[in-house]
Amino acid sequence: MRAAVYHGNSDLRIEEVAEPAPGPGQVKVKVHRNGICGTDLHEYFDGPIFISPSAPHPLTGKAMPVVLGHEFSGTVTDVGAGVDGVGPGDRVTIEPIYRCGRCRPCEDGRYNLCTSIGFHGLMADGGMAEYTVVPVDQVHVLPDQVSLDLGALTEPMSVAFHAARLSEVGDQDRALVYGGGPIGIGIWFALRGLGLTRIDVVEPSPQRRAALEKLGASTLDPTTVDVPALIADQTDGNGVDAAFDAAGVTASVESALACVGERRPLISVAIYDRALATPLLQLVLRERRIQGTICYTSDDYRNVLDLMSRGHYDTTGWLDTVAMSDVVDAGFGELRAGRKMKLLVDPAL
Amino acid sequence: MRAAVYHGNSDLRIEEVAEPAPGPGQVKVKVHRNGICGTDLHEYFDGPIFISPSAPHPLTGKAMPVVLGHEFSGTVTDVGAGVDGVGPGDRVTIEPIYRCGRCRPCEDGRYNLCTSIGFHGLMADGGMAEYTVVPVDQVHVLPDQVSLDLGALTEPMSVAFHAARLSEVGDQDRALVYGGGPIGIGIWFALRGLGLTRIDVVEPSPQRRAALEKLGASTLDPTTVDVPALIADQTDGNGVDAAFDAAGVTASVESALACVGERRPLISVAIYDRALATPLLQLVLRERRIQGTICYTSDDYRNVLDLMSRGHYDTTGWLDTVAMSDVVDAGFGELRAGRKMKLLVDPAL
Repeated sequence: MRAAVYHGNSDLRIEEVAEPAPGPGQVKVKVHRNGICGTDLHEYFDGPIFISPSAPHPLTGKAMPVVLGHEFSGTVTDVGAGVDGVGPGDRVTIEPIYRCGRCRPCEDGRYNLCTSIGFHGLMADGGMAEYTVVPVDQVHVLPDQVSLDLGALTEPMSVAFHAARLSEVGDQDRALVYGGGPIGIGIWFALRGLGLTRIDVVEPSPQRRAALEKLGASTLDPTTVDVPALIADQTDGNGVDAAFDAAGVTASVESALACVGERRPLISVAIYDRALATPLLQLVLRERRIQGTICYTSDDYRNVLDLMSRGHYDTTGWLDTVAMSDVVDAGFGELRAGRKMKLLVDPAL
Repeated sequence: MRAAVYHGNSDLRIEEVAEPAPGPGQVKVKVHRNGICGTDLHEYFDGPIFISPSAPHPLTGKAMPVVLGHEFSGTVTDVGAGVDGVGPGDRVTIEPIYRCGRCRPCEDGRYNLCTSIGFHGLMADGGMAEYTVVPVDQVHVLPDQVSLDLGALTEPMSVAFHAARLSEVGDQDRALVYGGGPIGIGIWFALRGLGLTRIDVVEPSPQRRAALEKLGASTLDPTTVDVPALIADQTDGNGVDAAFDAAGVTASVESALACVGERRPLISVAIYDRALATPLLQLVLRERRIQGTICYTSDDYRNVLDLMSRGHYDTTGWLDTVAMSDVVDAGFGELRAGRKMKLLVDPAL
């Protein structure tokens, strides 16, 4: 079968590899679509970061080379011994976390913080391939109403839903989302799913703002609007109930901290590539907090799939598909250049 | 009467001023001791910061010049009309906050975050004087077992107790305190008061470490110990349950964030004089948080006074007294030079 195999920095090859067979407790999936994540771009342009060049991962035993892809949907074609509750023909999406089950976070149910965490598509051969094999506990069956295309977005939408939940907002609250990329869009959908109606997305790119507004989002252009002054004016100086940093730059952190009300959070959901100059006095004076968030657990997947089954997510204007054979140029290149917002890879092409 | 009057940057004068009389709802206090706070040093060397040069404060109507001093104890000598429950001869400590009572934080009971907040001794004539007059709601009567000297420390100890409570630690938890100054010491006492027995204070100064160890505290010297490596080793990689930054420098924030366990807080209780390079990725990867904290509310005062009445606080080795007539040189100067840890001003001298 054909697969996109990561061999190191700037070296992703479309290769013919052996088709995997499901072992005990495993499920074989024919991949329909696999989303390209910012993490994949980092691995390609700046990595290897998460992918181990040579040391086998403690849970998967795998190192480079590895088939990329951790955001995917597909159809089950075969199952290994001992697999119950899922079988050939089932339409599924994958929650790609390997966890040890024994560390403190795992024991607390926070396996997204497992101290030995691994990801299918980084520490095991992933979804940028015609087929892949996953442990059955990574499988979520798609509701009938959810298309395979949309199902491929469950992973990033669960990252965003988890972030939204950590903010502890209620439906009468007001929120600000910094960054209108796929995670920012996902946070907007998640907050709407939690009942919020007062949300602004702060995004400097006119193209991204236009896409967001087509979805029905209210946007602010930080290059022409003094966002903290506007928020102070509109909230009688109380500020917003939560802000989200899905941009990961000094300007977003500074602006967000100036906008958050007392005892309210800035949720950090960016992969910061360096330490940022952060006005910590803004935390002290109003007893604000910065709360980090990463990944998801299965309840986030269930919530997102429930929202998807009720038609909550709209991919108009921000989602496209590329052929796996062209993933480097038409995929990574277009995303990095900012000409595409989110891309799904079709491994059949 | 004599008072230490702030006239602007580097201009604090011991002057003869009119002795104040209590108006309705006010209490006149003969000041026993008034602690010198880091805020006072900032006003003197770097200010005016909190003190308004000319605009009257919205709640007190006061601007410069102003009598300094917001950490004090004393004896009531007179009360104004309508004052019940406190009278001449009562030994008291002052909770120096003026609040509007109408803003959202005030309505939520978080008047330490009042949007018009004022402080006795910054926005009203304070405790570096023979007498001062305060609103009755700022008065806490000292328990019989608490000396007037110790009572003068209620304010900074309440800052520290509030910070400790915000960390949400339990008595089986392990904590790290960065900075062994008066607030760091206060956090150590507060955590001990909350039942914690596993606390280390990280402090580079040998003199401060020696003082802390005499109190019974365990200390770490960050100039010779790799604190994150030590903590990781001693906690099986789980990290501490809370860290406190009472140092306010990049090194403390970096080290603390590397030591805090997943979903645990770094409590920021420093007055940061600039934005610090902060490794926000440390928040994301383990879902840690940085929580700001400032001041106290009356329940913190009650908790501290209760601990004080049970003999919990020991001032051996870190507290001295200076004459008001020598407050600039023997007070501010010695504190700034690091030759003294905490000083109480005697306004009778």
